[in-house]
Amino acid sequence: MDDRKTLINLDDESGDDDATVAQKDMGQGSKPIQDFGAIQSEEPTTSSSGREAQGFSGNHHLLGDEPPLQLGDNAMPIPPEIPVNGNAGTSNRNINNSEPIFHLRSRTAASSTPNYESLDYEVCENTLFQEEQRKRLTERFSLRKDVIRWIIFIQIGIITALIACTIDIIIEELSDLKYSFLFNAVQRNVPLSDSSTGDLVIPYLYWLLFSIVPVAFGAAMVTYIEPITAGSGIPQVKSYLNGVKIPRIVRIKTLAVKAIGVITSVVGGLAGGKEGPMIHAGAVVAAGISQGKSTTFVKDFRVFKAFRDDHEKRDFVLGGGAAGVSAAFGAPIGGMLFSLEEAASFWNQNLIWRTLVASIISVFTLNIVLSAYHGLNDFTFTGLFNLGKFDAPLKFDYFELPIFMLLGVAGGLLGAAWNSLNTKINKFRKRFIPWKIGKVIEAVVVAMLGVTLACLMIYFINDCRPLGNDPTNHPVQLFCEDNEYNAVAALWFQTPEATVRSLFHDPPGSHKILTLALFTVVYYVLSCATFGLNVSLGVFIPTALVGAAWGRLLAMVTFYMFPQAEFLHPGKYALIGAAANLGGVLRMTISLSVILMETTGVESSFFFPLIIALITAKWVGDYFNEGIYDTQIQVNHVPLLTWEPLPQYKGLTAHEILSNPVVCIKLRDSAHYIYKMLKKCDHNGFPVVDDVQGDRRSEGRVCGIILRSQLIVILLKSLYVENKRFWLPETSIQTFRDVYPRYPSIKSVRQLDEKINYTVDLSMFMNPSPVRVNPHDSVPRIFQIFRALGLRHLLVINNENRIAGIITRRDFIYK
Amino acid sequence: MDDRKTLINLDDESGDDDATVAQKDMGQGSKPIQDFGAIQSEEPTTSSSGREAQGFSGNHHLLGDEPPLQLGDNAMPIPPEIPVNGNAGTSNRNINNSEPIFHLRSRTAASSTPNYESLDYEVCENTLFQEEQRKRLTERFSLRKDVIRWIIFIQIGIITALIACTIDIIIEELSDLKYSFLFNAVQRNVPLSDSSTGDLVIPYLYWLLFSIVPVAFGAAMVTYIEPITAGSGIPQVKSYLNGVKIPRIVRIKTLAVKAIGVITSVVGGLAGGKEGPMIHAGAVVAAGISQGKSTTFVKDFRVFKAFRDDHEKRDFVLGGGAAGVSAAFGAPIGGMLFSLEEAASFWNQNLIWRTLVASIISVFTLNIVLSAYHGLNDFTFTGLFNLGKFDAPLKFDYFELPIFMLLGVAGGLLGAAWNSLNTKINKFRKRFIPWKIGKVIEAVVVAMLGVTLACLMIYFINDCRPLGNDPTNHPVQLFCEDNEYNAVAALWFQTPEATVRSLFHDPPGSHKILTLALFTVVYYVLSCATFGLNVSLGVFIPTALVGAAWGRLLAMVTFYMFPQAEFLHPGKYALIGAAANLGGVLRMTISLSVILMETTGVESSFFFPLIIALITAKWVGDYFNEGIYDTQIQVNHVPLLTWEPLPQYKGLTAHEILSNPVVCIKLRDSAHYIYKMLKKCDHNGFPVVDDVQGDRRSEGRVCGIILRSQLIVILLKSLYVENKRFWLPETSIQTFRDVYPRYPSIKSVRQLDEKINYTVDLSMFMNPSPVRVNPHDSVPRIFQIFRALGLRHLLVINNENRIAGIITRRDFIYK
Repeated sequence: MDDRKTLINLDDESGDDDATVAQKDMGQGSKPIQDFGAIQSEEPTTSSSGREAQGFSGNHHLLGDEPPLQLGDNAMPIPPEIPVNGNAGTSNRNINNSEPIFHLRSRTAASSTPNYESLDYEVCENTLFQEEQRKRLTERFSLRKDVIRWIIFIQIGIITALIACTIDIIIEELSDLKYSFLFNAVQRNVPLSDSSTGDLVIPYLYWLLFSIVPVAFGAAMVTYIEPITAGSGIPQVKSYLNGVKIPRIVRIKTLAVKAIGVITSVVGGLAGGKEGPMIHAGAVVAAGISQGKSTTFVKDFRVFKAFRDDHEKRDFVLGGGAAGVSAAFGAPIGGMLFSLEEAASFWNQNLIWRTLVASIISVFTLNIVLSAYHGLNDFTFTGLFNLGKFDAPLKFDYFELPIFMLLGVAGGLLGAAWNSLNTKINKFRKRFIPWKIGKVIEAVVVAMLGVTLACLMIYFINDCRPLGNDPTNHPVQLFCEDNEYNAVAALWFQTPEATVRSLFHDPPGSHKILTLALFTVVYYVLSCATFGLNVSLGVFIPTALVGAAWGRLLAMVTFYMFPQAEFLHPGKYALIGAAANLGGVLRMTISLSVILMETTGVESSFFFPLIIALITAKWVGDYFNEGIYDTQIQVNHVPLLTWEPLPQYKGLTAHEILSNPVVCIKLRDSAHYIYKMLKKCDHNGFPVVDDVQGDRRSEGRVCGIILRSQLIVILLKSLYVENKRFWLPETSIQTFRDVYPRYPSIKSVRQLDEKINYTVDLSMFMNPSPVRVNPHDSVPRIFQIFRALGLRHLLVINNENRIAGIITRRDFIYK
Repeated sequence: MDDRKTLINLDDESGDDDATVAQKDMGQGSKPIQDFGAIQSEEPTTSSSGREAQGFSGNHHLLGDEPPLQLGDNAMPIPPEIPVNGNAGTSNRNINNSEPIFHLRSRTAASSTPNYESLDYEVCENTLFQEEQRKRLTERFSLRKDVIRWIIFIQIGIITALIACTIDIIIEELSDLKYSFLFNAVQRNVPLSDSSTGDLVIPYLYWLLFSIVPVAFGAAMVTYIEPITAGSGIPQVKSYLNGVKIPRIVRIKTLAVKAIGVITSVVGGLAGGKEGPMIHAGAVVAAGISQGKSTTFVKDFRVFKAFRDDHEKRDFVLGGGAAGVSAAFGAPIGGMLFSLEEAASFWNQNLIWRTLVASIISVFTLNIVLSAYHGLNDFTFTGLFNLGKFDAPLKFDYFELPIFMLLGVAGGLLGAAWNSLNTKINKFRKRFIPWKIGKVIEAVVVAMLGVTLACLMIYFINDCRPLGNDPTNHPVQLFCEDNEYNAVAALWFQTPEATVRSLFHDPPGSHKILTLALFTVVYYVLSCATFGLNVSLGVFIPTALVGAAWGRLLAMVTFYMFPQAEFLHPGKYALIGAAANLGGVLRMTISLSVILMETTGVESSFFFPLIIALITAKWVGDYFNEGIYDTQIQVNHVPLLTWEPLPQYKGLTAHEILSNPVVCIKLRDSAHYIYKMLKKCDHNGFPVVDDVQGDRRSEGRVCGIILRSQLIVILLKSLYVENKRFWLPETSIQTFRDVYPRYPSIKSVRQLDEKINYTVDLSMFMNPSPVRVNPHDSVPRIFQIFRALGLRHLLVINNENRIAGIITRRDFIYK
C-alpha cells in the first residue's frame, strides 16, 4: 500500500504559513510518508478512517480490488456532550431527526482509501469581499489586477520555458557524454575487422554503471525526498485542475526534485520521456509565481496577494500546464488545447487567451534559448519540433485511409493491453515492494534489465548498414565492416526521444525487420515495467517510440511482401503508428493530434490521417479500459469528476444522493459550540442557519455557508461579537487570504477558556449565496450546475428553505 | 430605420409546423418586411412596443444615438378583469403588492428597438422528460443518440465543405471568365506600343457592365427575398450561439440566397470576401441536418426527432460554424477555436471533440474536391491555404519585434477608424435610404465607384513591371512595353482574395510605392462603403487586403529609405500588416492568429510575431471602440451577454436588478385564467406556484417554471385534468417537441367555450428545477450562473421560497 502514497501522503501545498499559525511545517519534508491529509492532520491516527465528509472524501471504487466500502461504518464516535436533535415538528423534512448533530453522514464511511479535499473554486462573496470590491472599484483596481494577471501569465511562459530548456540541455549534454564514452569503449574493445570475437563485456559493464548510478540517484531522491514527483505528473496536474487538492503538488521543492529526477532517469536510459515532468514543472511555476510566496524558501514576497485563493491559483496552474506542454513539444496550440481538454468546464474567453499567450511566450523563449545554444541567430531552429520536422509534405492516397484505421485498431489493442499490464505490474509492486529501499533497487533492476536486453540485441543481431544514411550521432561500427555501422546499436545508443526521431526520419531500409520487431517487443515490455517506478518520467515518449517502431515495422513487412507498394513510406507509417499507440494508451485525442502535428511540422492535410488513427485507437481502447492517466487517477482513488453525469444517475433526484443530517451553525453561535464542533468533526463546509429553536440547528433556515478554514481563522483571531471594537476596523478579506493556502488546524487554536461564552456573528464572514437546489431536482442537472460552477458544496433545501442535505463531489463519484 | 430590419424583421426559424398548428406559415417569405416577431406575431401592431418581457426584450442602448429608453412607459393595458393583488400578510416580501398581476415589469419599456427572444438552452426536465429518460435508459438509447450525434457532425462537415467548394469554384470560374474578357478587351482596345493614346472607355464600360449586373442581381435577391442574408452573417451566428433567437437565421432559403448573393457580389467585384457567408452557411447546414426537417421545402424526414430543441440545435450550429470556418480557410483548428471564442461558456469536452471532427472532415472534403477539381490525385493541393502558402520559413530578428508591435498599433488605429467610419456610413444609410430599390441602387453605385476608381488608377499611374515575376493570371500589357505588364491592373484584375495572395507572395519590387499607397487608400474607403450594403459579403478578406497593402507599403517605404535593411521582406510585412489590420477591425485574436497561421502555412516560430501584432492591434483598437462584429450586434440591439459581468454591476445584488411583480400560475390553475393571461401578456416564462390564497398568485410558493410555448401546447391539445383519460396515455415529451421550433401563437387557440371551467395540472409539464437565487445574492455571481448554465429565466426567491422577482438576459444588458 505504500507506493500509492506517492500521490497521497503529503501534507500541503506551496505557500507559507502565516505567523499566527501555531503548528507550522508539521512533518513537512522530513517524514512525508507518515503525514496524511492536506490540511495539517488533525487526527493523524484516524486519517484513513472517516475523516472529512462535508469536504468530501474519495471513497469511490473503480477497480474492484480494494475492500468494498463499509457504508454506515462510522469511525467517528458520537460525542456524548452534544445534545441530540429532538423530533422536528414540521412535516416536510427530509432529515432524520433522531440522529445526533455530529453524526457523520451515512455514506461517509470508513475505508482504507485516502481522502482528498476539494479546492474552493467558488469565490466566497461575503461582506468582506463585497467591501473590497466596492473599495477597489473606485481605485481602478480591476484594471490593475487584470494587468498583473497578464504579467504573471507572461512570466509563467518565460520561466517554464527556461526550466524546460535547462532540463533539455542538461539531458542532451549528459547523454552525449555518456554515449560518446560508450561508443569509444565499444570501438576500443571490439576488434573492428573481426566481428566474431568481439568482447562486449567491458562496454556492457560501463553501460550498466552509467545507468545504475543516475537511476539510483534519481530514484533515491524521489523516494526519500518527495514521493509525489514519481511518474509523469500529468495525472496529478489533471486532478488538480479538476478541482481536487493534491497535497504538495505545486511546491518548489517538488519542482526541484522532479527536474533532477527526470534528468537522471532519462540520462540513466530508462524508457521514459521528459515531457510529462515538464508539464508538471509548468504547473509548479504557475502556482509559485502567482502566489508571490514560497513555502520551501519560507519567503513571502508580499506581491500578488489578491490572487491567493484556489480560484485564481487554479487558473494560473492551467496556464502553467499549457506553457509546460508548449515548452515540451514546441506546440503552443497543442499546449492550450491540452489545458482545454483537461479543464474545459471552467473556461472563459479571457482565460483561453491568457493561456494561449503563456504558451506562445513559452515556445518563443524556448526558441530563443535553444537557437542561441545551437549557435543560430534567427528563429528557424527546428529542434523545437522535438520529434523532428518532416521536410517534404507527407502524401497519402484514399486507399490508405482504411490502413490508417487498421493501425488505429492495432494501437487501441496494444494500448489497452499496455495499460492493463502496467496496472497489474503496479499492483504487484504495491503489494510486494513496500520498502523504500526496495523501490530504489527496483528502479535500478529495471535499468539494468534494459541495458542487458539492449546488449543482447546488439550482440546477437547482425544488422549492418552503410554509413551516411542514418543521422545517428554515434555510428558504432561494432561487428560491422568498415564504412558500415550497427543499426541495432544506433537504436539503443541515444535517448528515447532521439530514437523516435530516427524512426520518423531515417530513410527506408535503415533497419532489418528482425531488429525492429525485437526492439518493439523489448521496448513495449521495458516501458511497461518502467512506468510506475519511483522515478520522475513521462509516458509520452516511450509510447510514441513503441508506436513508431511497430508502425515502421508494419510498413517494412508490407513493403517486403508487396514491393510495388511505393506508398509505404516508413516514416509516415511510423508517425501514424506513434499516433495510434498514443491514442491507445493516453486516449487524449484533440491535444495529442495537434501536438503531433505541431511537433513534426506536418501540414493540415495530414491532420485527417492522424486523427483517424487516434480516434480509432481511442475508441478501440475505450472498449477495454481507460487511459493510463485516468487509470492512475483511479488507482489512487482521486475523486475526479467526469465530463458528463454518469449514465446510472439518470432518473435519480437530489433526494437520493444527498447526505444528511448536516452539521449546521447558527448565524450567531457560541464560540464554544464552534470550537467543540470543529474538534469533533472534520467537515469542511457548514450551512449557516437562522430561525433556530434552541439547539436544533439542522432545522434552521439556511442563510449561507461557511468553510472550516474561515471558522478556524475566526477562532484564532478572536473575531467575536464581544470584542468587536478591537478587530473590526482592521479586519478585511485579506485577513483570511493571508493564511492561504496552509490553513491552520483546529489544534492550533488554544482552549477558549475566558472566551468560552463569547459569540461569533457569521453574517459578515459567511458566503451568503451558496448554490441551493431542491430535493426533487434531477441529479444530471445538479451535476451540471456543480461542474459548471466548480462547486465544493451544494446545499439541498426544502420548500421552506430548511436544510434537507448536502451534496459534495464525493456524492457524484460514489457508485 | 428600414435597413436595420435585415436583422430583425423575420418571423421564425427553420422547422416545419405540426399539423395541429392553426396559423401556419403566416407571412413567411412573401412579405418578410412586415412581419415582426419570432413567435408568430400575436399583436403585430404592438410588436415594437413592449411585447414580451419575461422572455426578455432587447432594449439596451449602447451607441447613444437612439432615443432614450422610456422606462415605465407601459404599452400594455392593464386588463380590468384580473384581480389586483391585495396586501400580503407576510413580512419579508420584496414584491410590491399593490401592483396588478399583469402589470409589465417596470423596465420592460416601450421603445423603438426591436425585441429578441432568448433561446431555451436550459433543458426542461419535467416529468415527461424524466419518463423518456427512464424508458430510454433501458433501451440503450443513450448510446444510439450519441452515435447519431456523431453521424450528424460528420455530415455537417461534409455538406458544409461541399457548399463551400461549390461557391468557391463558381466564383473562381466566373471571375476568370470576367477578367479574361476584360483582359482581351483591354488588349484589343489599347494600342500595345503607343501608351499615350490608349482608349480605356470600351473596357471601362464592359467592366461596369460586368460589375453592375451581378451586383444588382445579388442586391435585389438579398433585399427582396431574404434581407437577413445581408452582410457576413458572423454577427448573426455569434448572437445565435450566445443564446439569442435571431429569426430565420438558420433556414435553407437563407442559405440559398446567401450563396447566390456572395457569388454575385464577389464576381461583381465588390470589396468583400466569401469567408463570412461560408461560416453562416455552415451554421444553416448544421441546423438543417440536425433537425431532419425543413420549413422551406415543407418536408419532415421524421429523423433526429430527439434533437429538436434549442439546446441540441445550438450545439450543432456550433459545429456548423466551425466547419464553415474550416472550409473557408482550410483551417480545422482555427475553425474549432473560432467556435470556442464565440461560445466558450457552454463547452464540454465531447462538444469540442465533435466540433473538431466536423472541422477536420470539412477540410478533408474540401481537399478531396478541390484536388480533384485541379486535377491532382494526392492531397497536397495548396489551394487550401487560401491566402497562399509561404514556402520558405519566414524568419525574423529580435529587433523586429518592436516593429511588429508598431504595426499592431497602426492596425489598431486604422481598424478603430474603419469601424467608426463604417458605423457612421451605416447610420447615414439607415436614415437616408429606407427604400428597397434605393438599397439595390446603392450597391450598384458602390460597385461602379470601385470600377471607376480602379480605372482611374490604371489610367493615371504608370507602373510597368517585367513579365514573369508576378504570378498574376492576366498580365495586362496596358500602356506598357512588350514583355512588361501593368502592375496596377494586376492588382485590380482579380478577386480580392487573389490580391491578398499577390501581396503576400509577390517578389520584392512588384509594385511602385505610389501604386500601393493609392491602392491602400482606395480600398480602405471602398471596403468601408461596402460593408453594410444589402449584399452578402464578408469583411475578412477586404480587411486583410487593406492590412496586407499597408504592411507591404511600409516595408517598401522603409526599405527605400534604408536599402541596407534586408530583413524587410515585403511578404512578411504584408502578413503582419494583415494580422494587425484584422486585429484592429475584428478584435478576434485567438482564432484569427491560428487561422492566419494555418491558411498561410507559416511555422509555429512565426506565431509569436503574428500574435504580437494582433494583440497590440486589439488593445489599441479596444481603447477606441468595439470590434466590427460587436458593433453590428449593438447597432441591431441584440442583447448579447458579455463574457464577464459588467464592472458596473460589481457590488449590486439581485434585488437591485430583478423585475417584479411577476406573473405566476398556480400548480392547478383554470384554463380560463391561463388563456386570458396568455392573451394579455407576452411573457415567455411563468413561475408555477402553490400554497396560494385565492387569486394572489404572486404570493405563492414557487415550485417550478413553465414556458409560454408549453402552455399554448397544453391549451391547443386540451390537456386538462377533466379529460385526462383521453390524452394521458399518448402524451409524451414528443408532443411538445413536435411543434418545435415554430410554436403556435395564442391566437391559434380557439375560444375555450365549453372548456372554460376546465383545470390544468402543470405538475407533469412544468420544469420543477428552475435555478433560484436569493435577493441578496451578488449580481456578478448571478451572472456567472446565468452564463455558465445558459439560462433564460432566473427566479429570485425570498427566504420563504416565495417569488421576489425574475431576472432575464435583458436585466444583465440594461445600463
